[in-house]
Formats: sequence, C-alpha cells, structure tokens
Amino acid sequence: MKNLQQITVIGMGLLGGSVTLSILRSLNGVKAVGYSHRESTRNRARELCIASEIADDMNEAVKGADIVILATPIYTFERIFKEIASSIKPGAIITDVGSTKVLPHRWGEKIFSKDVAYVGSHPIAGSEKSGVDYARDDLLVGAKCIVTRKKKTNEEAVKTLVQFWAALGSRVSVMSPAEHDRIFGSVSHLPHVVAVALVNASNFEQLKYAGKGFIDTSRIASGPSNVWSDILLSNTSNTARGIDRMIKQLSTIKEAIEKDDQRKLANLLEKARTKRAELIDYKISKKELL
Amino acid sequence: MKNLQQITVIGMGLLGGSVTLSILRSLNGVKAVGYSHRESTRNRARELCIASEIADDMNEAVKGADIVILATPIYTFERIFKEIASSIKPGAIITDVGSTKVLPHRWGEKIFSKDVAYVGSHPIAGSEKSGVDYARDDLLVGAKCIVTRKKKTNEEAVKTLVQFWAALGSRVSVMSPAEHDRIFGSVSHLPHVVAVALVNASNFEQLKYAGKGFIDTSRIASGPSNVWSDILLSNTSNTARGIDRMIKQLSTIKEAIEKDDQRKLANLLEKARTKRAELIDYKISKKELL
Repeated sequence: MKNLQQITVIGMGLLGGSVTLSILRSLNGVKAVGYSHRESTRNRARELCIASEIADDMNEAVKGADIVILATPIYTFERIFKEIASSIKPGAIITDVGSTKVLPHRWGEKIFSKDVAYVGSHPIAGSEKSGVDYARDDLLVGAKCIVTRKKKTNEEAVKTLVQFWAALGSRVSVMSPAEHDRIFGSVSHLPHVVAVALVNASNFEQLKYAGKGFIDTSRIASGPSNVWSDILLSNTSNTARGIDRMIKQLSTIKEAIEKDDQRKLANLLEKARTKRAELIDYKISKKELL
Repeated sequence: MKNLQQITVIGMGLLGGSVTLSILRSLNGVKAVGYSHRESTRNRARELCIASEIADDMNEAVKGADIVILATPIYTFERIFKEIASSIKPGAIITDVGSTKVLPHRWGEKIFSKDVAYVGSHPIAGSEKSGVDYARDDLLVGAKCIVTRKKKTNEEAVKTLVQFWAALGSRVSVMSPAEHDRIFGSVSHLPHVVAVALVNASNFEQLKYAGKGFIDTSRIASGPSNVWSDILLSNTSNTARGIDRMIKQLSTIKEAIEKDDQRKLANLLEKARTKRAELIDYKISKKELL
C-alpha cells in the first residue's frame, strides 16, 4: 500500500462516513476526503469530524485521490463515474461499496480510460440505521469485505484494494462480480425480500401480539427502501430465482401441513434446524459470531 | 387467588421449569410440584432445585393440586388429560402452555368432568434454547400471556388463572381459542415457517458469506422441530392461509423486480419499513421492547 496519500469517499452515509473514520483511525498520514451532495450532510460531517476534509464540490474532492470510493446508492454510480472521469488522476483506483457488483463493473469498465482501474468492493457491514450520525470508526473491523475483479482487471489495483480493506480491519475475499451477485442474491437479497413480504403479509392489529420471533425475522425490512430497491433491481435474475426457491419451500411445507404429514413436516423443520446449527458453528469457528 | 396451596407442572423443559421456578419466586407458601416422564430430567430438575418437589409418578404429582399445568408438546395433551382425569381433585383448574388453543380446549372439555375446569394458557416466552437447564425464574416477567376461554368456561377458574399468571409477572389478555389461533397463526407460526423455508432454500457453501441479516431472519428456525411440527399441525388452516398470503407477497415483489418497476418495488419496501417502524414504536410504548 505504498504511496497512498489521499482517499476520497463520495457519499457520507452510515457506510461512507464509517470508511473515512476508519481511514483516520487506521491509515496514519493518509488524507481522507469526504463529499456529499447534500449541504446539510456536509455540515453535519464537518461537525462530527468524520474526515480530514469535507469538499463542497465532487470534482474537487476526487482530484489527487489515489483511491476513490463511491458510497452512494447503486443507481447513482453510472452518472457519478461520468461526472468524475475527467478529474481522476492517472493510476487511480475507483471502487464502490455497493451491494451488487455486476453492474458497477460494467459501468466502470465502460466509462473510465485504461489508466484508471475500476475494482469492485462490498464491505458486509451496516445496520438498519442509516445516516452519517451512525458512522463508526470500527464498523469495518472484523467485517467481511468482498473485492471483485474480472480477468482483465488490473492486478496491482486489486492487490492495493485488498490491502486497503484489510488495513481497516476487514476480512477480504476476492471473487468475480458474477459469483458475488449469485452468492449475495441468496444470502442477503433473498432474506430482505422475505422479511418485507412477511411484514406486508401481516395485519397490524394482530402484530400487536407479536413476540421476539417476528421482530427478529422481520428486522431487515427496516432497511432504507431506496437503497434496497436499487440493490434488488441491480440483481434481478438471482433475486427472482431465490424467490422461486423460497415459494417452492413454502409450498412443500404447506403441503405437509395440509396432508397432516407429521414425519415429513418434522423432517423439513429438522433439516433447517440442523443446517442453521452448522452455520452458527461455522460462524463461531471463524470468529464472525460470539 | 385465595386458597392456592399446590400447583403441579407436568413437563420440565425450558418453560415448565421456568413456571415452577417462578412460583417459588413469586407465590410464597404455594407448593410447586414438577413431573417429567424422563428420569434423567427429573434428576436434573432436583439438582437444580427447580420445584418444591419433583414427583416420580404423574398421578401422584397432580393429586391435591389446585392448578395443573401441562408444559409438554401439544400432541401429548389428550393422552395426559385422560391419564390424570381420575386423580384430579374436584374444583381444580387444568391448563397448559401450548402454543395453539383450539385443540386443547376441545380435548379438555371432552375429557374432564364438570367439577374440573379447563382453561387455556399461552405464555409468550421462550427461547430457541430448550431443556430444563435453561429454565429461569424471570422468564415470565413482562411476558405476554394469553388466557383462552369459551362462553361456557367457568368464570371463577378464568379469574384465578389470570391472577396466577399476573402474579408471576406476566401481562395477561383473555380471548377465545379461535381468535388466539388466528392471531398466532399470523404472528408466530407463519414467521416460523418462513424462517425454515428460507434456510432450506439456501445453499450451505453460499451461507458461509451470510451476514447478520440472514442470521436474524432465520433465528427461529433453530427451535425444536418436534415442538414446532406439533404447533403447525394443530393450527393447520390458519398456517396454510398465512403461507398463501406470504407466497402472494413474494410473487408481487418478484413481479415488480422482473418488470424493473422501481416505483412499485420501492413502495412495497417502504410499506414494510413504515409498518415495522410503527410496530416497534407500539412495542416500545408498551415496554415490550427497550
């Protein structure tokens, strides 16, 4: 990670603000520049001392940056890439923290010239809270971070970005954007759809009797709807396939219930119980859960 | 609650053990008798001092009891009611802590003579853990507890049981068994089915990348499969209708995704976000969440 002098983060929400705070905490001597298109957010970010500097202009913000990180909704990426393309210095690395990676790669490769390297990033960190006020300098510590690359992606840029996220305390894996979107379609986007569908399938008067089970099962439905509709719409086919698998499983359970098939139903429940227990054991062994 | 001298709990699992512990804590002078059909559980319950006395014989256990509480799986109730019917003292109240109430009422009313009152109970307390080792004397404090009655149910018995659960610290509501099963079919049994279906729809290798969202959304799938298959099979039509509503909501979301209908998708997500926020506010106002 030699020669990193400036890193610019565009978008000062929970994640963007946490990235600049983490740079201040972990990368001594590196200037962390932040930018938000909202004046109120820029002012708040300054009050919270969230970055070395908060720029008022996006092109000024990226000038001289060795790494530029977009932490805005996915569907703003294409436009922002076009706007900043001429201000980026040669040799710079562009990345983003978006939750899907196929489309950002497509846009990055289309828009930037050959002397600028686009590499994807997806730090698996966040909260159902949003906004710069919730930014934390330890949000990325211990978090998984996926770095995505295609065959033609610049090798040095991938290496630098892996080192960068690791320096902030994240546990980095590298994979292709297609594999990333397949995996996160299943383990992240599908659960989100499921939580939303569960809340929408429920009656508010009845929900007054809900216990901790419903509260936990539906927690992620409290995520910001604009961010999540972008995520789902940028991973259409994987999400749709996941919904199909979910409907199939629900239908199988319904059939066992309606046929009063105790053995089949108990097997389905036990299969889920065992699989989840193995998952928890795996996560504990990797120190991802306590 | 005058004249309560003995309460017998059949079944020394997490909930049964917590009920006897709560009686010891909150009902001074009342003898709490426990029984389990497993010798190893009886021995462990004695080691943990979980009750005033652990009986080796179920009929001995219920003799002289003013209240008998079944804390065993739902499908054991009918058999146990028959076994203990002749040992119950006249004027006693029989209840259970099962998660559905229509069938227990049917069995209780069929089996017991007129001088014994069956009233249903459902304390909304528990954990994905099970077994007497996890019993706690404060599990019922602040928990909701539904007492179910039909029109013909003995008025005095309902009153005594409401006072009993309130004395253990629970927040008691009274309703009919049919209303109970409709409500909990939606807010408890459906989320369980959803969590199980989500785990079964997921690939283990992909799940290694799962974050906190998946872990929370699937948490209740770790509940004991025998208990839950009993619950679902004793609330068939409400659960099946819930699954239908869930499949409909999933299909609606899938359609919006496949049609790239950003506005509709964002509306669906926002509707869920808002509804859940209202639910959390309601729960906080009732001090059911902190």
